[in-house]
Amino acid sequence: MSFFGALPDAVSIYEVSPRDGLQNEAVTVPTTRKIRLIEGLVRAGLTRIEATSFVSPRWVPQLGDAEEVCGLLPRDPRVTFSALCPNERGLERALAVKIPEIGVFISASETHNRKNVNKTTAETLDVFRRVIGPAVKAGLRVRGYVSTLWGCPYEGEIDPKVGLRIASQLLAEGCYQISMGDTIGVGTPRQTRDILSLFLAEIPAEKLAMHMHDTRGTALANIVIGLEMGIRTFDAAVGGLGGCPYAPGAAGNVATEDLVYMLDGMGVASGVDLAKLWEAGQIAKAIVGHELAGKVHKAGLRSLSH
Amino acid sequence: MSFFGALPDAVSIYEVSPRDGLQNEAVTVPTTRKIRLIEGLVRAGLTRIEATSFVSPRWVPQLGDAEEVCGLLPRDPRVTFSALCPNERGLERALAVKIPEIGVFISASETHNRKNVNKTTAETLDVFRRVIGPAVKAGLRVRGYVSTLWGCPYEGEIDPKVGLRIASQLLAEGCYQISMGDTIGVGTPRQTRDILSLFLAEIPAEKLAMHMHDTRGTALANIVIGLEMGIRTFDAAVGGLGGCPYAPGAAGNVATEDLVYMLDGMGVASGVDLAKLWEAGQIAKAIVGHELAGKVHKAGLRSLSH
Repeated sequence: MSFFGALPDAVSIYEVSPRDGLQNEAVTVPTTRKIRLIEGLVRAGLTRIEATSFVSPRWVPQLGDAEEVCGLLPRDPRVTFSALCPNERGLERALAVKIPEIGVFISASETHNRKNVNKTTAETLDVFRRVIGPAVKAGLRVRGYVSTLWGCPYEGEIDPKVGLRIASQLLAEGCYQISMGDTIGVGTPRQTRDILSLFLAEIPAEKLAMHMHDTRGTALANIVIGLEMGIRTFDAAVGGLGGCPYAPGAAGNVATEDLVYMLDGMGVASGVDLAKLWEAGQIAKAIVGHELAGKVHKAGLRSLSH
Repeated sequence: MSFFGALPDAVSIYEVSPRDGLQNEAVTVPTTRKIRLIEGLVRAGLTRIEATSFVSPRWVPQLGDAEEVCGLLPRDPRVTFSALCPNERGLERALAVKIPEIGVFISASETHNRKNVNKTTAETLDVFRRVIGPAVKAGLRVRGYVSTLWGCPYEGEIDPKVGLRIASQLLAEGCYQISMGDTIGVGTPRQTRDILSLFLAEIPAEKLAMHMHDTRGTALANIVIGLEMGIRTFDAAVGGLGGCPYAPGAAGNVATEDLVYMLDGMGVASGVDLAKLWEAGQIAKAIVGHELAGKVHKAGLRSLSH
């Protein structure tokens, strides 16, 4: 059984609920409640948290309070907060609030990218040339998201070579890590093996992360493949926040609780305390005002302790 | 990447929703509606369906119409129906309705077994001695369920050697297959590897099946391990029916749609048509009258076709 030979002692979780979760909610959560959620995430031991986005409030009103959120972030030297940053204007805002990390995002699908930011991928990469380099020069860390790598809601399957070309370009511009996104949660394990094989042939594992949505229940199965193949950073959202507004009840990001539960059971350290994380999930549920899709979130922890 | 070397061309799905699903519902579904569900499952291509249970209606009133259900089962030579059968009285009932397969069930946990059937596991095995042999002699196939192998709600972790001893005994008595149960959905992939390694050292893979609950989102991740290690039969319930009544909203059996979705994506044939299966899930939802936990069930199939 060579399968588990490569299992790591520890991995890093990149928590995206305050951004990727809350931007998909119908209601705008008040700033102080967002901070309550973020404080809960920090208490749980998460050390990489995407707190907000500097996308224009015209497009994402839910995150229109980015400056206020950044001003109220808990000051904990162990935690690195980040914010999504679409363009030079976003970078100016990020620099103004002194957030230490930004994320840039692009889709491997032309149609999805156009629907998302009204630009071709080439135009988006042009914009990033004026964001990533200057950000790095200003001392920021820049993370690149490449979305729809496992499939696009408009184009269906995406040639992973196109995504790899984009990822390589983002790294060349100065991104320290590429978050590979299964944006609509269509991925299955054999496909994950194929996509990761292609990427890992050109990019070191530590420069890659997996950002899996659990829309069809396959996120953890795909993450197991990633673990086995050397991926050590996984994006997740507490409670599984981030469901698609077009598919009510459908799951969003892989739930951080489910991921930590699985990692704990496999003896892979994440630094996250599952009981405190579960409490953060209860905060998340309270501030969005509806049930969340995460399974451990729903099942509770009672039956885990004997 | 040796991981996928052993991936099979095809697997068999053992559908348990009419029994393991409906027995956990608060309301008793009328017989004709159960038959509508079973007809939907047959239309989807499922060929092994656990239709009901000959447990006493005093204990499981939801399945008190076992004889009526058996009398109304669709006659399709491709489909083998089965019924759970706790004792000699159950076997008499099974023989009376001429169902071709029965299932016997026992827990690897003494406490769980006592709470479930008010007997020690030794006493239960004694009962089975008067069920399995006579059933096989009468021309029935007998399947054995060994539950709580991944953990018990009362005892916590269970020594898998205890479960293996029980499984071996059931096979020696005449069971053609052992369904290994993660009854409360606590399993994680490394544990699954360990348990399967132990069992596969003594029992051929074709005599084993995995019966995983998705309470904490890990069912498909565990099934991927099983696939890689040679397991070729997987129990599932459409829509993820079978949630625990003590944990509202918690998931039950792994949803057949999620399993088939993953298998389709991996190029592993199951003989099941996902679109028709999704329709069967809609029947399931309608007859139980509440939302189900299955992810593909919730997300729908719309975004799968382009």
